[in-house]
Amino acid sequence: MEEQTKYLLNENDIPRAWYNINADSPVAPEAVLNPMTNEPVTPDFLSVLFPMGLIEQEVSMDRYIDIPEEVREAYKLWRPTPLIRARRLEKALGTPAHIYFKYEGVSPSGSHKSNTAIAQAYYNKIAGTKAMTTETGAGQWGSALSMACQFYDMPLEVYMVRVSYDQKPYRRFLMETYGAEVNASPSPKTHYGQKLLAEDANNPGSLGIAISEAVEMAASSNGGKKYGLGSVLHHVLLHQSVIGEEALKQMDMANEYPDVVIGCVGGGSNFAGIAFPFLRENLKNGQRTRLLAVEPDAAPSLTRGIYAFDYGDTACSAPICKMYTLGADFMPASIHSGGLRYHGMAPTLSSLYAQGLVEAVAVSQTKVFEAAVLFARTEGLLPAPESSHAILAAINEALEAKKTGEKKVILFNLSGHGHFDLSSYNKYLTGQMEDYALPDEAVKNIRQHIPAIKENALV
Amino acid sequence: MEEQTKYLLNENDIPRAWYNINADSPVAPEAVLNPMTNEPVTPDFLSVLFPMGLIEQEVSMDRYIDIPEEVREAYKLWRPTPLIRARRLEKALGTPAHIYFKYEGVSPSGSHKSNTAIAQAYYNKIAGTKAMTTETGAGQWGSALSMACQFYDMPLEVYMVRVSYDQKPYRRFLMETYGAEVNASPSPKTHYGQKLLAEDANNPGSLGIAISEAVEMAASSNGGKKYGLGSVLHHVLLHQSVIGEEALKQMDMANEYPDVVIGCVGGGSNFAGIAFPFLRENLKNGQRTRLLAVEPDAAPSLTRGIYAFDYGDTACSAPICKMYTLGADFMPASIHSGGLRYHGMAPTLSSLYAQGLVEAVAVSQTKVFEAAVLFARTEGLLPAPESSHAILAAINEALEAKKTGEKKVILFNLSGHGHFDLSSYNKYLTGQMEDYALPDEAVKNIRQHIPAIKENALV
Repeated sequence: MEEQTKYLLNENDIPRAWYNINADSPVAPEAVLNPMTNEPVTPDFLSVLFPMGLIEQEVSMDRYIDIPEEVREAYKLWRPTPLIRARRLEKALGTPAHIYFKYEGVSPSGSHKSNTAIAQAYYNKIAGTKAMTTETGAGQWGSALSMACQFYDMPLEVYMVRVSYDQKPYRRFLMETYGAEVNASPSPKTHYGQKLLAEDANNPGSLGIAISEAVEMAASSNGGKKYGLGSVLHHVLLHQSVIGEEALKQMDMANEYPDVVIGCVGGGSNFAGIAFPFLRENLKNGQRTRLLAVEPDAAPSLTRGIYAFDYGDTACSAPICKMYTLGADFMPASIHSGGLRYHGMAPTLSSLYAQGLVEAVAVSQTKVFEAAVLFARTEGLLPAPESSHAILAAINEALEAKKTGEKKVILFNLSGHGHFDLSSYNKYLTGQMEDYALPDEAVKNIRQHIPAIKENALV
Repeated sequence: MEEQTKYLLNENDIPRAWYNINADSPVAPEAVLNPMTNEPVTPDFLSVLFPMGLIEQEVSMDRYIDIPEEVREAYKLWRPTPLIRARRLEKALGTPAHIYFKYEGVSPSGSHKSNTAIAQAYYNKIAGTKAMTTETGAGQWGSALSMACQFYDMPLEVYMVRVSYDQKPYRRFLMETYGAEVNASPSPKTHYGQKLLAEDANNPGSLGIAISEAVEMAASSNGGKKYGLGSVLHHVLLHQSVIGEEALKQMDMANEYPDVVIGCVGGGSNFAGIAFPFLRENLKNGQRTRLLAVEPDAAPSLTRGIYAFDYGDTACSAPICKMYTLGADFMPASIHSGGLRYHGMAPTLSSLYAQGLVEAVAVSQTKVFEAAVLFARTEGLLPAPESSHAILAAINEALEAKKTGEKKVILFNLSGHGHFDLSSYNKYLTGQMEDYALPDEAVKNIRQHIPAIKENALV
């Protein structure tokens, strides 16, 4: 019999509901706090930034939330995504393990971000939103929301971290091709940007700053504009659950079940997307799959951060969440995985990690690129540096299985392609890449960057 | 009932044979001539450049040629490719036409070129070839062969047109990530390159020059290296027939049959790939599908060239073929569709065009980019500029159907993605793009650039 490589589903297998882990989590989610009062936020406060459809999802305890038919129609442009057995990588490693990956890079914008971008644009559209704002680091999220806003005929303002704006013009051109307005952040368009530029005209920007600007533009628009976030928030993680739901069906087609499910984590959404449906099977149906989150050692919020209430942005204007954090003013080193350079971690994922239901590991970027090149040379696909964190962890699991002889089944999420990251590959191939592990001294000092609000006293 | 968008096949639907149009063409193929003698080439002459497996395919009159199982295994990494109904584009145009496209951009290297790259590397490998050489213009072919040679553990030397080498570093980095050695052409590594650089150290290069260098390196290697070509030759077109064979099955799944099949043409391989299986149905099974080749008005070999014997390269060292040509020393303007900047057209396709079995049209690049942006904004996928020639023609057919009210079924080949072409999109969006139609005077002078060999006297 022929060896099967790809496991494909048809359009009617696109999930009809998103899965909400909060319905099954042993610990109820913590309240989100208003940054001006430190008290739990009200829907009224959130509605300045988000349409009610998304706010309801943010706090919902329903296990399943129906995916609107219009969103499923748009998903059909690329979903269901393939599950692929990495047979060539297995052979190169000489491992008895079976390595599968879910490939989200087939989406038009090149990553899993489209799964939530379409949903967010849709809920904004039906709520009457006239225009949207957002931030982007490496550009994956900005590209995805640019496409989605174009589909629903809403103008989009993107605040793009200046260093990426300058170094990644292709990502900017892609957003502009989709019709978005892209601003280098900090930008003279916002009060916060003006303040920062007055202090330093060459401020290179950060994701936290860009979030602050996008939030300011929405909050000060008198309802004319709403804001979209590409990770961290619960409704974003919820939308990504289509990844894991499809993967469950596809692993079944392959007659296997994963011993370990792996994803990279920046804000946490692609990992949550693939892992939470498998966590449901652990919690409800007696499965015992390990769930492994992989973060860069330059921004190790899960493995070295503190579990506390903290701001989501640098200007301290975004809601306060309980999460693993390195401090809202933490500036991660300039690693090439721009999508993982964030000080915090999704509160939902943070809670599950604190409960011991999820594992985490931090890895260095030269090892990540070594894994990425091996993957490209065996499987052909060029992975995003972010996603390559998951590849490295999968390879390490497979090499461990080689030592023990275990026929382990490994599943990881290849959350995006690296077509816009080739200058990073060039740096790696020409020996110009460095590692940036966080010094112990910096870790010791994190607590002083965490806001002194009463809930943090309990931590 | 839900509207279907994508038509997917499973791995066991990957064709088991390539389709050879020469078996069904009403006119036998013309001889290929030795550039040193102007006499028909012998297999011995060709075997300096190519392994016997490919030479046999070049001259075969068998209707079907089995695809080796090892090649089908590698195809499984991305094949079968999806057939997608462009429902959002249809709506934007307000056309009664149904528009389908076959999406070859899902291949790891980003285009249809992988279909023949894998086959060529395979036949070289089993013939004992130790290393390969090739040229690349925009980089799609070079990327594909770099990946394929890595799969079969053969070193590859790529000669990349210098202007692309400088302007498209990402394509170069991709080839290097796949393990290839990439040289700017003209290069000091070859005698021909040395000669050109001595005349002009800033020679920007051309595809014809790069072919000459890659051919020289193989021909002078005493059998150590063979040469691979990404289009034009018959075996290359043959390998691309998997596109059309799959599309036939997928149109059947959609319960439709195309009135017109469209592809862009540079050397002719992606168009041949989608069109020839439909041409077989015209010739053998009474179908009447129009087959429309779309070329850039800056390199209009079919619509404005001469049907004559001509060299395939600039140094006049490659075999002489009867084809539509603008002259081997023709320098196309610097349009952004690098893959279509070639002076000639595949002999097999040229013959079918001369017989009136295929139509052709030339279009301008600003119109092409207008179509590309509309496509990206409706369907999400960012098309390669080359492939966007086909999109423009499909849109024109759909608008024509809108006028007449005809429920026409249109199928085009989206041969690759445009992720490495975003600087061209930026030029278009910022109004910096020009058109380069060939002046009538230049067309009149083409004949004087055609070699004076006896067969040309008959033209």
